Amino acid sequence: MSLKEALNWRSATKSFNGETIEKEKLDQILEAIRLAPTSSGLQPFKVFVVSNQDIRAKLTPIAWGQPQILQASHILVFAAWDAISVDRVDGFFEYSNQVRNLPSTATDAYRLNLLSLLDKKTKEEQFIDASRQSYIALGFGLLAAADLKIDATPMEGFDNNALDELLDLKSQGLRSTVMMALGHRDDENDWWSKLDRVRRPHEELFIEL
Amino acid sequence: MSLKEALNWRSATKSFNGETIEKEKLDQILEAIRLAPTSSGLQPFKVFVVSNQDIRAKLTPIAWGQPQILQASHILVFAAWDAISVDRVDGFFEYSNQVRNLPSTATDAYRLNLLSLLDKKTKEEQFIDASRQSYIALGFGLLAAADLKIDATPMEGFDNNALDELLDLKSQGLRSTVMMALGHRDDENDWWSKLDRVRRPHEELFIEL
Repeated sequence: MSLKEALNWRSATKSFNGETIEKEKLDQILEAIRLAPTSSGLQPFKVFVVSNQDIRAKLTPIAWGQPQILQASHILVFAAWDAISVDRVDGFFEYSNQVRNLPSTATDAYRLNLLSLLDKKTKEEQFIDASRQSYIALGFGLLAAADLKIDATPMEGFDNNALDELLDLKSQGLRSTVMMALGHRDDENDWWSKLDRVRRPHEELFIEL
Repeated sequence: MSLKEALNWRSATKSFNGETIEKEKLDQILEAIRLAPTSSGLQPFKVFVVSNQDIRAKLTPIAWGQPQILQASHILVFAAWDAISVDRVDGFFEYSNQVRNLPSTATDAYRLNLLSLLDKKTKEEQFIDASRQSYIALGFGLLAAADLKIDATPMEGFDNNALDELLDLKSQGLRSTVMMALGHRDDENDWWSKLDRVRRPHEELFIEL
């Protein structure tokens, strides 16, 4: 399907039919997330791909009982770095220079400048920076899903602290940011997809200068 | 081009060739941004579509002299609501119910719940929430551009306060979050696109549960 068709087809599905999506399609969606750009290329997050029913049962009250958690095929939990630490930054550039067959010092000027900018930020501000990057990847994942006719729902309505505890994120230096439910809509019961889509008119959203 | 091809084709262009992109393609990219989903559908941001050379000349030092600002065809400046105020939320639901031909009270339970959640957040926290939504739209815009073989560079390296002042964002209740340069890469001088792409391996980014 064309990107334009995908954009118009997609909808934040509120009711899934319980079907499991094909592994190949799941992998394509994850690949779009993996290839999404991030600031300085850090990819400062991980994505938990949850299919386990026990975990989902525990996740349901954390997401205020939203039925998608159990009905969807998979739940992706985006979890950003709780801080953009020196170790993490250094580790990234080491990896990056390895991939590119460059000497480990090749990016030192850039790396040191980045570290000095980060040093001016609190740990909380660093997390907020990281969390924003996870939303670019969320966008890529949502569009990739639509392109494959897989329904995907971005979900922010959950108790972040409780989710962090359920997935033991703190010990991994991570904090949950957003979730994405994947699956196929239940055509009969997905009341949401029957409502007209609401978006602000072009002339209200965009200002030409 | 397929989404998979678009994902692999795109690159954060560091050097543009100065060509102006076709209006039809620009409009398609803006349409992807307009159709991006946002929390509760609020679309809590505006996008400044900058082609004016004088503004770009002033923007260049604000973006630490990055050459894309003048070389690109257009610069999109994403600016999120500085607060998710009661007026703004009420205005959205009024508009939404109008579009859907629903009575203005149709969404009251949802709206009041949302307002009570927002009431627990500081203005700064509300801005951070809004800024994250602008990054979903950034993701949609980046992928839509790649799909049209338009180069697009996400840009976070700028002085937010100076940009807010240049575009008089404060008086509009907005704060800049991220920029996106659009155009065509300068094949000879875009050193960045010649480097191998660096992304973490699948098994490092994703955790299956």
